[in-house]
Amino acid sequence: MGRRPLPERRAEICRTAAQIIRERGFEATSLADIAKALGISKSGLYHYTNSKDALLLEIMMFGLDQIEAEVVSPVRGIADPQERLYEVVNRHIRIATRAGGAVAQLADEVRALPAVNRRKVGQRMRAYVAFVHGIVEELAATGRLRAIDPTVATYMVMGSILWVPRWFREGGRLTAAQVAYEVAWSTVDALLRRPAGFSPRAASFGGTRPRDQAQSSSTTSPKRA
Amino acid sequence: MGRRPLPERRAEICRTAAQIIRERGFEATSLADIAKALGISKSGLYHYTNSKDALLLEIMMFGLDQIEAEVVSPVRGIADPQERLYEVVNRHIRIATRAGGAVAQLADEVRALPAVNRRKVGQRMRAYVAFVHGIVEELAATGRLRAIDPTVATYMVMGSILWVPRWFREGGRLTAAQVAYEVAWSTVDALLRRPAGFSPRAASFGGTRPRDQAQSSSTTSPKRA
Repeated sequence: MGRRPLPERRAEICRTAAQIIRERGFEATSLADIAKALGISKSGLYHYTNSKDALLLEIMMFGLDQIEAEVVSPVRGIADPQERLYEVVNRHIRIATRAGGAVAQLADEVRALPAVNRRKVGQRMRAYVAFVHGIVEELAATGRLRAIDPTVATYMVMGSILWVPRWFREGGRLTAAQVAYEVAWSTVDALLRRPAGFSPRAASFGGTRPRDQAQSSSTTSPKRA
Repeated sequence: MGRRPLPERRAEICRTAAQIIRERGFEATSLADIAKALGISKSGLYHYTNSKDALLLEIMMFGLDQIEAEVVSPVRGIADPQERLYEVVNRHIRIATRAGGAVAQLADEVRALPAVNRRKVGQRMRAYVAFVHGIVEELAATGRLRAIDPTVATYMVMGSILWVPRWFREGGRLTAAQVAYEVAWSTVDALLRRPAGFSPRAASFGGTRPRDQAQSSSTTSPKRA
């Protein structure tokens, strides 16, 4: 961004721009389209940003800043990993559903950024995934994680969160708070060891059972599995 | 498409095109780029398709045909909804991870299609979501679904499947078969009623507990929640 806007103005610019980019695709969107949607002139928008690339980076940093301020920081004080994970999912869904979920769904457009900025965004995203992975490992270390690979579990949590903006619409039968509650609860519960869970028939694998479902406490980091 | 290619050729064209569109974005990809990746001339590609729009529609129909042939049809004969849901998730993940998961991740580009084709794709996608929702309702009707809204449960299943191609990479520590197994197992298990599950503290909601977690057997269809 050029001049740093006030926080509310930053949120408005980022959310509006994200919505248009999401509707039309990044390549097909011009700064003039975004300025129009914001009700300002193109030169008014240039006051904040020099290019469409810079604006895309800013939107992604805005999303990541929200996760830091409203998810990661507030939950650090929660001692119990189970409660902490629940709070992560619940809080992140609340953010990811704002403004039609456009900011949360813009991650694919990272390909449009120059390599140096793609790395910046990638680093922060990986740090967040590692944070979630750390909580999953804590569940494993305290014997509460069910028989699941911790990396797979971590990505299942990420998917639980980030799939919501793809279908949730404000003003429907369920509120964002209800969906956040249900998804967070189910996601955490799904990862916990339970006395007698469902086990698919061996026949389902056509004789190639992928691996024993022994309790895993691998400390592999969740890059590419 | 113009002339109908043989099934293997269709798969090759669709997968290669999907990978390039996924890397560059639909707007930024030309038919010439796709022809080059296929190692054929642009006029050779015109043999199969008249336009980039038609090719995009064809890729989506290819993905939906695979789901019909390799997921929906084979599982119809499974009487137990729990086993059927497990098979849906497992089989769909196997499809969705092929060729770098490019076809499965192209759904966002549906915005680039003309309205009539967008409706065609949308109808088939909704029919598949309704199929999954029907299985969830069967679990509810037989008292096996945990206290979760069936629409939320249905979209959680869709997310479990369709998030995998976003992080899974062939040739890594885990095979597609292992991931499909773990995700399918966890996803089904997560939806089942269990004796003593995790319940988040009421304090987590800041006093606004969204709704009672009574066993729900709503028959609301999963449009927009």
